[in-house]
Amino acid sequence: MTEAQIEADKNVPIIRITRDFAGTPEQLLRAHTDPELFAQWCGPDTTTVRIDHWDARNGGSWRYTAVRGDDEYGFRGCFHEAGPERIVQTFTFEGQPDSVALETLTFEDLGDGRTRLHAQSLVDSFESRDAWLKSGMETGVNEGYAKLDTLLTKRTV
Amino acid sequence: MTEAQIEADKNVPIIRITRDFAGTPEQLLRAHTDPELFAQWCGPDTTTVRIDHWDARNGGSWRYTAVRGDDEYGFRGCFHEAGPERIVQTFTFEGQPDSVALETLTFEDLGDGRTRLHAQSLVDSFESRDAWLKSGMETGVNEGYAKLDTLLTKRTV
Repeated sequence: MTEAQIEADKNVPIIRITRDFAGTPEQLLRAHTDPELFAQWCGPDTTTVRIDHWDARNGGSWRYTAVRGDDEYGFRGCFHEAGPERIVQTFTFEGQPDSVALETLTFEDLGDGRTRLHAQSLVDSFESRDAWLKSGMETGVNEGYAKLDTLLTKRTV
Repeated sequence: MTEAQIEADKNVPIIRITRDFAGTPEQLLRAHTDPELFAQWCGPDTTTVRIDHWDARNGGSWRYTAVRGDDEYGFRGCFHEAGPERIVQTFTFEGQPDSVALETLTFEDLGDGRTRLHAQSLVDSFESRDAWLKSGMETGVNEGYAKLDTLLTKRTV
């Protein structure tokens, strides 16, 4: 499985994720803004995603629930900018409602139908950022992106 | 005129503004979420505010234009959280659309009908933060809050 590069910035409380995909920037944008596509790949293999609300436009908002057996985990945010150049959105896990991240996603065209995804998550303290890094986030990130790889291979994005 | 305390955090790219008001937390929340009230006090004395869009709820969004003679300056963002405990919103000056701040406003009850406003603006680099501090923002902040003082004195909030 291709591993995403997950980096903690030294100077600011940011996590940066970099990952290459065999898809165009347009396909990557679609995979992050179309709710039916997003639900098919987001998160670890042990959860399924139920979209509760989704309005991917500047000033819109979103909410989804990750379901694992009888457990449900809510996530929500608003879209400050929903493409085409980038996605800028807020992000909160409702189990920790005080923590809000500002996420910025850009899609670097590598040519030949390949794209490098750059995802930046900014929070307001290094403590919050480091707690997030220690939460096991890389499993969800990597398993999710592997599912997105499969969707791109099947050309369903 | 009461000056707001405007501080640059040493460790993270945050501007913190602190200002006391002769109003309750509920009045301060209203002054920041009711568009007709907000337009009456926001910004420097040389501009007027036209509300273009305003939907103060979790997942809503806002846009306003600051008008100075023939010049117009657009600002926009989305409300991640629109009270009652706090306001968390994104903020962009449309003249610099790449810059997005994540703002958090809380209203500390000082008793006797007084409130301390804490406003935190988080951006993704110290360069952006320091450019903002050098932009003359304190004029707009202080003149705006003086207008809000007047509204509170007139009890129209």
